[in-house]
Amino acid sequence: MNSNELLETYEESTQQLAGHGPRNVAVLKTAFRSIDGEVKSDKYGSGAVIEDFQGQMAEFLGKEAAVFFPSGTMAQQIALRIWCDEKGVKKVAYHPLSHLEIHEEDGLKELHGIQTILLADKERVIELEDVTSMDDDIACLLLELPQREIGGQLPSFETLRQISAYCRQKGIKLHLDGARILECLPYYEKSVKEVCALFDSVYLSMYKGIGGIAGAVLAGDEKFMAQSKIWKKRHGGDLISLYPYILSAETYFAQRKDRMAEYYQHAVELAAFFNSCKGISTVPHIPVTNMFHVHFQEAPDRIAPVLIQAQQIMDIGITGYLKAEKSGCMFEVSIGDQYKLIPRGKVAVTFEWLAEKMKSL
Amino acid sequence: MNSNELLETYEESTQQLAGHGPRNVAVLKTAFRSIDGEVKSDKYGSGAVIEDFQGQMAEFLGKEAAVFFPSGTMAQQIALRIWCDEKGVKKVAYHPLSHLEIHEEDGLKELHGIQTILLADKERVIELEDVTSMDDDIACLLLELPQREIGGQLPSFETLRQISAYCRQKGIKLHLDGARILECLPYYEKSVKEVCALFDSVYLSMYKGIGGIAGAVLAGDEKFMAQSKIWKKRHGGDLISLYPYILSAETYFAQRKDRMAEYYQHAVELAAFFNSCKGISTVPHIPVTNMFHVHFQEAPDRIAPVLIQAQQIMDIGITGYLKAEKSGCMFEVSIGDQYKLIPRGKVAVTFEWLAEKMKSL
Repeated sequence: MNSNELLETYEESTQQLAGHGPRNVAVLKTAFRSIDGEVKSDKYGSGAVIEDFQGQMAEFLGKEAAVFFPSGTMAQQIALRIWCDEKGVKKVAYHPLSHLEIHEEDGLKELHGIQTILLADKERVIELEDVTSMDDDIACLLLELPQREIGGQLPSFETLRQISAYCRQKGIKLHLDGARILECLPYYEKSVKEVCALFDSVYLSMYKGIGGIAGAVLAGDEKFMAQSKIWKKRHGGDLISLYPYILSAETYFAQRKDRMAEYYQHAVELAAFFNSCKGISTVPHIPVTNMFHVHFQEAPDRIAPVLIQAQQIMDIGITGYLKAEKSGCMFEVSIGDQYKLIPRGKVAVTFEWLAEKMKSL
Repeated sequence: MNSNELLETYEESTQQLAGHGPRNVAVLKTAFRSIDGEVKSDKYGSGAVIEDFQGQMAEFLGKEAAVFFPSGTMAQQIALRIWCDEKGVKKVAYHPLSHLEIHEEDGLKELHGIQTILLADKERVIELEDVTSMDDDIACLLLELPQREIGGQLPSFETLRQISAYCRQKGIKLHLDGARILECLPYYEKSVKEVCALFDSVYLSMYKGIGGIAGAVLAGDEKFMAQSKIWKKRHGGDLISLYPYILSAETYFAQRKDRMAEYYQHAVELAAFFNSCKGISTVPHIPVTNMFHVHFQEAPDRIAPVLIQAQQIMDIGITGYLKAEKSGCMFEVSIGDQYKLIPRGKVAVTFEWLAEKMKSL
């Protein structure tokens, strides 16, 4: 088996189950088609392009102010640093599979000298008891909603309320890693403002469910956001021009912010299709957002040929990769605009075929 | 006087003396007009778009490898951090008006804990003696060519050679803040490779003379560049997509890299026009790159009305701001594509008018 064949057949298929479509230059060109060339660039964090969008996002999230950052990595390290400095305690807590712990080359520790306490275990989300039983004095607790590395699981909204109340009582700041927070709203049946009100600071990604090119928004009170701009400059994130990201974020935010319920419903439907096949299961079993993980009992070299064949025969992209696990393998699904473009009958036939194949594997 | 009138009349004038034209969305749209929508995004530092351009820049600069960064602030802090870690000495030296010292909110100190030694004084560039008379053990010396905050002055090429030889002998790494290094080449009459060969690491901006949207290139040996990618992720600069900056940088680099001699000649010509007016002088008196500073003996409230009138009558943008100094005021000029579009006769008439006005001020 050619190791790239899974990716190649995925990319060559006319339609993919997940995502908004290919991440290519057309994403930029489409967003800028209707934007006038005379629109002035932002300049080192100033100017209408950046200030208007920041104002729009602060209003949307129900916070006093918001700042546009090139990345969530930068925005979140900075948020935690500010809360640590304010309390004079260089310690924060988060999930063992937090983006900061596993995907940022320890920037939080190496650049900011912040210690981390890992709450809960790798299989489940942080619950109230994990927080109340913590001995250490911390400046900030970071909650990631949904918890991406375990398939996008969520605590109950009541748990969030209780954690928030506990943190306020104990003088612990609560930060929301809300890269995918809009994707959680249909399940919680809450407005984004209701969720964000539980947190002192909030980060939202511009290229997950929203499908922009890159970029992040950090929101909080005026004083916090003013400090974040200083740190943004220190990190090298106060670019002379962020408009390629801001204007595309603005376009796709307007287009997709109200589609999250549809993505969520499609995720529930698609997960059920996967779970109907022997040797395949999803986490969560029933998704609570637009995302879930697909786990196979068999190793990648057993599964890949089946998926390659499926992608070739059905002309539907299922996945471009398989990640080996202790036993079996997995891939991640995040539903976007593409799923609804595939006729339901075609999805059903694909999974009938897959179910047959898995039976005889 | 309306405090914005200087900026307004500058922006409203059909032609400006300095720059490549307005920093607006058209810069992006023009660059992407000929780029196919199917071109795939880079992804977290990988993919043809970023790897090809990095290869092209490494080859151009005569270094083993190059990495594209969202900003020079990020690239340079990282370069200095790597050299400090390698030597186990957290101390570097640079000019008192280095970008790192005055424009980065002390990111180098706050994020990296690096101490700085300031060489030379604020009025002149670093000379060999400043380096050889340094008592402190430093990991790296940063030279900015040209020294932007004093009008773009340059040491002689012989001085560079001597500083480079001295640093190599003493085990001090030499880093080039070459934001505007291409702009220096016509005066030095050297190739970019000849200049870069004197340095262990080199940074080049994509939006100064080149006129891209934003971004920076850092170049050096393979090991150094591999480490820089780890720090780029820590800083939050390893964006999922940097192609809006990379592809526009590529376009404008190809377009402008060979125009630097023309910009330089125009700067020499324009500086002479300014120096022909009473109460106006440029630094350097004769420019050595495409840039210089224009100083007025009188305060901004005396000078602005004259410039506003000139901009209105002549329909030529001279400056959009004046910065007050201890005595008098100043602004900066960086010549780009625009100067040559103005008929010489019109420039001459404008300065005849200005010279008359300044006489009677």
